[in-house]
Amino acid sequence: MSAIDPAAEVQIPIAELPEGREVVTYVLCVEKEVATDRNGKSYLRLKFRDASGEIKAIHFDPSEEALAAAAGDVVKIGGTYSVHAQYGPQFQVRRLRRMEEGEYDPATLIAVSPVPVVELHERLAKLIDRLTDPHLRVLLEFATDGARQPGADFLIAPAAVRNHHAYRHGLLEHSLIVAEVAAGVAANFATVNVDLVLAGALLHDIGKTQSYSTDMLAPGFTDAGRLHGEIVIGHDMVAGLIAEVPGFPAELATQMRHIIISHHGEKEKGSPVIPMTREAIIVHFCDDMTARVGACDDAERAAADGDRWSPFSRMLETFVYLAPPATDD
Amino acid sequence: MSAIDPAAEVQIPIAELPEGREVVTYVLCVEKEVATDRNGKSYLRLKFRDASGEIKAIHFDPSEEALAAAAGDVVKIGGTYSVHAQYGPQFQVRRLRRMEEGEYDPATLIAVSPVPVVELHERLAKLIDRLTDPHLRVLLEFATDGARQPGADFLIAPAAVRNHHAYRHGLLEHSLIVAEVAAGVAANFATVNVDLVLAGALLHDIGKTQSYSTDMLAPGFTDAGRLHGEIVIGHDMVAGLIAEVPGFPAELATQMRHIIISHHGEKEKGSPVIPMTREAIIVHFCDDMTARVGACDDAERAAADGDRWSPFSRMLETFVYLAPPATDD
Amino acid sequence: MSAIDPAAEVQIPIAELPEGREVVTYVLCVEKEVATDRNGKSYLRLKFRDASGEIKAIHFDPSEEALAAAAGDVVKIGGTYSVHAQYGPQFQVRRLRRMEEGEYDPATLIAVSPVPVVELHERLAKLIDRLTDPHLRVLLEFATDGARQPGADFLIAPAAVRNHHAYRHGLLEHSLIVAEVAAGVAANFATVNVDLVLAGALLHDIGKTQSYSTDMLAPGFTDAGRLHGEIVIGHDMVAGLIAEVPGFPAELATQMRHIIISHHGEKEKGSPVIPMTREAIIVHFCDDMTARVGACDDAERAAADGDRWSPFSRMLETFVYLAPPATDD
Amino acid sequence: MSAIDPAAEVQIPIAELPEGREVVTYVLCVEKEVATDRNGKSYLRLKFRDASGEIKAIHFDPSEEALAAAAGDVVKIGGTYSVHAQYGPQFQVRRLRRMEEGEYDPATLIAVSPVPVVELHERLAKLIDRLTDPHLRVLLEFATDGARQPGADFLIAPAAVRNHHAYRHGLLEHSLIVAEVAAGVAANFATVNVDLVLAGALLHDIGKTQSYSTDMLAPGFTDAGRLHGEIVIGHDMVAGLIAEVPGFPAELATQMRHIIISHHGEKEKGSPVIPMTREAIIVHFCDDMTARVGACDDAERAAADGDRWSPFSRMLETFVYLAPPATDD
Amino acid sequence: MSAIDPAAEVQIPIAELPEGREVVTYVLCVEKEVATDRNGKSYLRLKFRDASGEIKAIHFDPSEEALAAAAGDVVKIGGTYSVHAQYGPQFQVRRLRRMEEGEYDPATLIAVSPVPVVELHERLAKLIDRLTDPHLRVLLEFATDGARQPGADFLIAPAAVRNHHAYRHGLLEHSLIVAEVAAGVAANFATVNVDLVLAGALLHDIGKTQSYSTDMLAPGFTDAGRLHGEIVIGHDMVAGLIAEVPGFPAELATQMRHIIISHHGEKEKGSPVIPMTREAIIVHFCDDMTARVGACDDAERAAADGDRWSPFSRMLETFVYLAPPATDD
Amino acid sequence: MSAIDPAAEVQIPIAELPEGREVVTYVLCVEKEVATDRNGKSYLRLKFRDASGEIKAIHFDPSEEALAAAAGDVVKIGGTYSVHAQYGPQFQVRRLRRMEEGEYDPATLIAVSPVPVVELHERLAKLIDRLTDPHLRVLLEFATDGARQPGADFLIAPAAVRNHHAYRHGLLEHSLIVAEVAAGVAANFATVNVDLVLAGALLHDIGKTQSYSTDMLAPGFTDAGRLHGEIVIGHDMVAGLIAEVPGFPAELATQMRHIIISHHGEKEKGSPVIPMTREAIIVHFCDDMTARVGACDDAERAAADGDRWSPFSRMLETFVYLAPPATDD
Repeated sequence: MSAIDPAAEVQIPIAELPEGREVVTYVLCVEKEVATDRNGKSYLRLKFRDASGEIKAIHFDPSEEALAAAAGDVVKIGGTYSVHAQYGPQFQVRRLRRMEEGEYDPATLIAVSPVPVVELHERLAKLIDRLTDPHLRVLLEFATDGARQPGADFLIAPAAVRNHHAYRHGLLEHSLIVAEVAAGVAANFATVNVDLVLAGALLHDIGKTQSYSTDMLAPGFTDAGRLHGEIVIGHDMVAGLIAEVPGFPAELATQMRHIIISHHGEKEKGSPVIPMTREAIIVHFCDDMTARVGACDDAERAAADGDRWSPFSRMLETFVYLAPPATDD
Repeated sequence: MSAIDPAAEVQIPIAELPEGREVVTYVLCVEKEVATDRNGKSYLRLKFRDASGEIKAIHFDPSEEALAAAAGDVVKIGGTYSVHAQYGPQFQVRRLRRMEEGEYDPATLIAVSPVPVVELHERLAKLIDRLTDPHLRVLLEFATDGARQPGADFLIAPAAVRNHHAYRHGLLEHSLIVAEVAAGVAANFATVNVDLVLAGALLHDIGKTQSYSTDMLAPGFTDAGRLHGEIVIGHDMVAGLIAEVPGFPAELATQMRHIIISHHGEKEKGSPVIPMTREAIIVHFCDDMTARVGACDDAERAAADGDRWSPFSRMLETFVYLAPPATDD
Repeated sequence: MSAIDPAAEVQIPIAELPEGREVVTYVLCVEKEVATDRNGKSYLRLKFRDASGEIKAIHFDPSEEALAAAAGDVVKIGGTYSVHAQYGPQFQVRRLRRMEEGEYDPATLIAVSPVPVVELHERLAKLIDRLTDPHLRVLLEFATDGARQPGADFLIAPAAVRNHHAYRHGLLEHSLIVAEVAAGVAANFATVNVDLVLAGALLHDIGKTQSYSTDMLAPGFTDAGRLHGEIVIGHDMVAGLIAEVPGFPAELATQMRHIIISHHGEKEKGSPVIPMTREAIIVHFCDDMTARVGACDDAERAAADGDRWSPFSRMLETFVYLAPPATDD
Repeated sequence: MSAIDPAAEVQIPIAELPEGREVVTYVLCVEKEVATDRNGKSYLRLKFRDASGEIKAIHFDPSEEALAAAAGDVVKIGGTYSVHAQYGPQFQVRRLRRMEEGEYDPATLIAVSPVPVVELHERLAKLIDRLTDPHLRVLLEFATDGARQPGADFLIAPAAVRNHHAYRHGLLEHSLIVAEVAAGVAANFATVNVDLVLAGALLHDIGKTQSYSTDMLAPGFTDAGRLHGEIVIGHDMVAGLIAEVPGFPAELATQMRHIIISHHGEKEKGSPVIPMTREAIIVHFCDDMTARVGACDDAERAAADGDRWSPFSRMLETFVYLAPPATDD
Repeated sequence: MSAIDPAAEVQIPIAELPEGREVVTYVLCVEKEVATDRNGKSYLRLKFRDASGEIKAIHFDPSEEALAAAAGDVVKIGGTYSVHAQYGPQFQVRRLRRMEEGEYDPATLIAVSPVPVVELHERLAKLIDRLTDPHLRVLLEFATDGARQPGADFLIAPAAVRNHHAYRHGLLEHSLIVAEVAAGVAANFATVNVDLVLAGALLHDIGKTQSYSTDMLAPGFTDAGRLHGEIVIGHDMVAGLIAEVPGFPAELATQMRHIIISHHGEKEKGSPVIPMTREAIIVHFCDDMTARVGACDDAERAAADGDRWSPFSRMLETFVYLAPPATDD
Repeated sequence: MSAIDPAAEVQIPIAELPEGREVVTYVLCVEKEVATDRNGKSYLRLKFRDASGEIKAIHFDPSEEALAAAAGDVVKIGGTYSVHAQYGPQFQVRRLRRMEEGEYDPATLIAVSPVPVVELHERLAKLIDRLTDPHLRVLLEFATDGARQPGADFLIAPAAVRNHHAYRHGLLEHSLIVAEVAAGVAANFATVNVDLVLAGALLHDIGKTQSYSTDMLAPGFTDAGRLHGEIVIGHDMVAGLIAEVPGFPAELATQMRHIIISHHGEKEKGSPVIPMTREAIIVHFCDDMTARVGACDDAERAAADGDRWSPFSRMLETFVYLAPPATDD
């Protein structure tokens, strides 16, 4: 990202817009539709987003400049925010124009993990510290070194294009929880290599750094993400990192690569081979289980307060039960 | 099981049969086939089992009494054990007759969990101790009380008719490892009721006590096990136990029952509803994951020493990789 | 349902609304959407329902009281019904307010089976009369006794949340036709227990009485309906009823319970065990076949007069052919 | 089949072979395997079949003539039948030679429907009598006219190559029970054309007459049976018969043909279109249900007396429960 | 199609409508929706189609005559075409009325293959010329004889109801490319009958001539198309044509019919038998492969210029990659 | 393979063994089973293989040396070949001992492609000559350079562990026919890059060189073949080769890699992404189609002369029809 002009505009987080007072701010325009009435007059239905949330907007009598703006643009807007009893929250736009890079601070526009970055980094350091195998430890240090690739991307990438962890640092947050859960599970079994589980869990999704656009303002798949797939990309990246670790044992490399390739668990889900070692089984199951518990959290957030059932979750293929905690009192 | 006559026969464990010396002992006959040659003479091909293992046997010139014995009988045998370079281990029978109950000690014939019973009971006590919810604690105390049903069965039942934990105490051993793993997983998530996960994991398979024959000498399904299924039976049992716990909260009961019903995870696998709470998701995944790691252990045992690959595992739908531990030097 | 105030409002069935004349009546409001125009004025798009049918409505310049009404409310309305050549039937609302329980007669609002209740009761009595097995007969008398549960619910519950028999007495109507068809089929086979088929067919769906809301004004699933499933609930109810019948043979109970549990026919469709007796096979097939013939009737009703093909039926996964009866002359 | 020489050999039904006494008879040889011992001497393991059943046989010191006989041949045999406590029933052959057509009576060798042919014909006549539609009635008279094709084959063909109704008149027996059941079901629905159901059910499997070999001594598929499939063949045959009926209404023909084409119910099971009329739905379901009840009968026959469970039935994908009739006292 | 009145109206192809100038022309109305505003005034949203393309239209203040027109009608329209920067192309209707047959030239309204008809006929002649087998050659001459059926339909039918080759001559175009590809493939294998592949490929879809409506102004399925399916219909047609060819060998007929019946490749896709000969395998694969390459062309056409990815293709179950040709420099 | 001692033994091809005359030769022992009789005497049942075929063998009174030989050994044998009318071909062993490397010529033991190597090389050269794209041409020259890897392996590897092309040069033979067919297909479409299809088809299976053991005397999977899969391995190899070609365009590389990754066509079959370009579609379909035609050839070889149907082919999921060529005469 390019440097921000010190004279950049001030941004008011969407979640903090004052009601009923005209403001000037800027946002990412994520949807734009031109509507019209029988008199042939056009107006705009819009959706804006920033790091704090989203809001619908409407813009009557748009200028040529406003009409020229597109979804994906950062736009400077003037207008009024209101919450109508019937319509819900909405921003009535008076003026709107496209901004150029440098005029705004992208950091204000991009959602980040709800877990503080400092905490994520501490948890990562703690996990790497648990590795007693020297080669796996070096591998992980390389892979998470923010001063080079792929570490630089790994530390900030989202875990998905939309929904589940689709925000800055989302990949790191997801990788950490999978690794913490998997290492805990592995410790129950004498025949399981805990280090290998921990390292495999931390790196299982590293292919996503090259499968998804790194432009957080325009999320989506890369060409390679679609044409080669995150499994093959991730395997190539891990194989490349392993080649950099002096004396990395061939046997350990074979098993580490197997974990990456097989972590989707089934051919139908994109793993060309299925898990054939205890370590690969544990990484796959902990990835899937953790994602599903996270999907419950997502579903709960999408429900209204007091609802006993969430909206239908496509990932879980069910509604989620949200009853008050089933404890005594 | 009826009392054992103090004058009962002495049993020599199959795994400790001396080579090349005539012995008298008793075993469970698990296979019996009558073969013949062109002279019309019949001989018997047999398989014997006891708590320590299995062995093939052959019996030429069988008496009428020997011919009358059947698979499932406990038989007194005289003969010689040998390990031929080409044939492998085999017992050459000289005499064989069916024994009556009371003549033998069933305990010598039944495989038990490789984990000592004392250790299983300690781990169970420790898990119940972790329960802070008073109703779940009482529920678990009822369910595992060896002085009554279903606890008496629960503490000794096998976890399967064959293979995976198909031995005395196998159900308890399986329930413990699932509960230990699941409780560990649950502790990573602030929104998860750890007590409910722990209790659900301990009881998820309790229906097996009525789905499988309790006669360990003749393992198999009960009529109800086939006609009603272990899920429905298990749910009925847990619902019955809950009804015995004074003041058990209705909401907690609803969720506990849901865990039992949904623990197979998919309709195709026999759960009429799929997991709809975080707790049910965790119990299901930990049950499946734990069983698969166990299947790796089974597959490894079925392989010859030094093999890099196990025989094909039907449960895992793959061979298991058995390379030397993937650690350094 | 609470008693109706003798001074309750008069209800004009939707199917009998006079065209072009202002009326005052009441209906169940089942959909409500607030729309707006560029002048910021809100108006309401509504859908009303009563026992006789449904109608779309529109309400301009709604009062605060009208805006406060919600889907699920019974509303008193004033306005005019019209059938425009282009728009079809519509109710133009002038006034609208929420009613309280007691102000209206719920019976006017709830769809009922097209078959007269008297006829349903006669057919039920006739079927029970055909039972020669005394225990099954008592079981059915208990299960259909309107003076207690579950009979009280069984006699009035709908057979579905929407579509197929989703009206008062729908469950009874569906259970009767399945039992009549199944008993007829069973009579063709000497090896089939006709009484068991008949009883199983009558009770196969009894779990629906606790799986669906009994509030016909707000149809939907109960928590238990989703978390435990109608199969497990139905099995529990039948097991409970059997326990009340003195001397009910254990063998007969085992088979009766199997019919309930297996009646969906496949694990994928929610039966944890599949049919393993002739009687269970017949109940399952007659349930499925009968529902599909009913789906043809539903599809035909959804078609316009003279159409040769119905709209696509999701249950049948096809369009239904509606040609004139394929007879001669 | 060619005429039988009046001097043809006498056949003793396998089911009536006297024990322990040398006899001369003839049978169909259905399996023949040459075994050998280390002295290089060959002997024969055989399986014989006739209309009454099957038996295993053994033949030591076979002549060249005996060695030359093949599975599929009718063979004249001399030897002794015995039932050994351990080996079960077996025929010890002393002499064996291949017979030529004309030397034996094929009728003695071919299994027939357990239902007497007279009864089958009466039931067929009764069903056709129920048809009130004149065109369908003529169609059925043509189709079942034993003096021409396809009626001649239809009246004697088996319903399968093996198992389920794989005997003479088996197709007629199966078609009758499907039609009787389906007509009974249809009578419950006012919107169903009972005549069309009845006619469709009687003819649904007529394609089998050309899909299976008509040589009952060598059952198997015809080339067309495999390459074109019984559905397409059956449709062609019914279309051809319809073309012979003067004035057969086009609409009725369209629907009749649809029943034949769709009667397997699913594309996966070989019907290129699925049922789209009530009549086609009923024929499909009654065919499937009837076959499954029949599979229960087959499974029961394959079980030993007193068994509570049949062997696994591949058609039903389950064991069948065989408990004593679930009636009282 | 009936004769066209010499005084028929002039048609301006949609693709050539002049911008901003009032015109009078006629089109096929394929969609019509009546919309309204709060003043109760109705206006029409329309979609028009002719041989050159489609266009959206809007009609305010429609006359009674305009309101009476329906989708499927050919309509005479007056109005103005414009391409607004925001709305895209649109036709503003001033007057609209339904036309009667004879008033217009249907040929102007129906899309045709982008490949010139002359070229299609030349390619067909060339393919038939390659046939050295005299019977297959006569069969193909009959089948493609435009002076009789089914040739008359075969030469002009579309290959689909919508999308893929859903235009006049589309079936011929599709059949030619499949035959050209398949004949080329067949030539690589010494064991393959190239003539049979070529003839089978040309006729594989002939059933579509009777499965789809021949009224190109109202595309859709025929009753038989749905109730009997294009596979059975196509087989009947080819069997009928074969019967007309003197001396057509039975063996060749059996194999030719097999190709038609099995060409969908799988039962799930509507072929009651799967390919069992090399020739049937090649025809099936070339049909499927060719259709998929065609779907890439369709997907590319649906993308905007310069897009690297097409819209999602339902046939291909993926987006199609549209990068600049992967060549050098 | 090590050099062959000039004094190496003479090998008589199994297919050319003289009948009834004692010979000395050597073969690969592929199966060895020790059998025994009631006298405790052991004999050996064996299967031998060489480049020309397989034969069963029996060895009575084996020496200690013979007993010590194992499946996988090359063995020197003395004995007599015979074809008994009843037993079929068999080799009666008199003497047998294990040989050491150097004593025998491996080339005599390994099956090779039925197509002469010279012809394979000519066809390969011709295909590479057709490449007009300079980078793809260099890529193919590298990949097929027998003087280095992977070319050295590519030119001699088998195409499978068993069955289909499971012989020396089998991979090259399979790659050539796929490329020839695919290039021919591609030429029919103006929008397809023929060079890319040709190159992709030639290299699609190159991963098999590292997935299967290169020791043709002991065929099987490598550890990486199972743990990483031939798709990922093949992609890595092609990516590595591309990196060696100076100036290979990135866009072309992306598409080439996509073809390798997607060539199994479906996730279920091991491709983590499905074909998303025309070229990838053609390579996948031609690979599958060609393999199936080859499976017909295999099935025909497995049938007896004159059979109309082959044995069941697991790859084709059907029997193959083998009627005399469907041509006229």
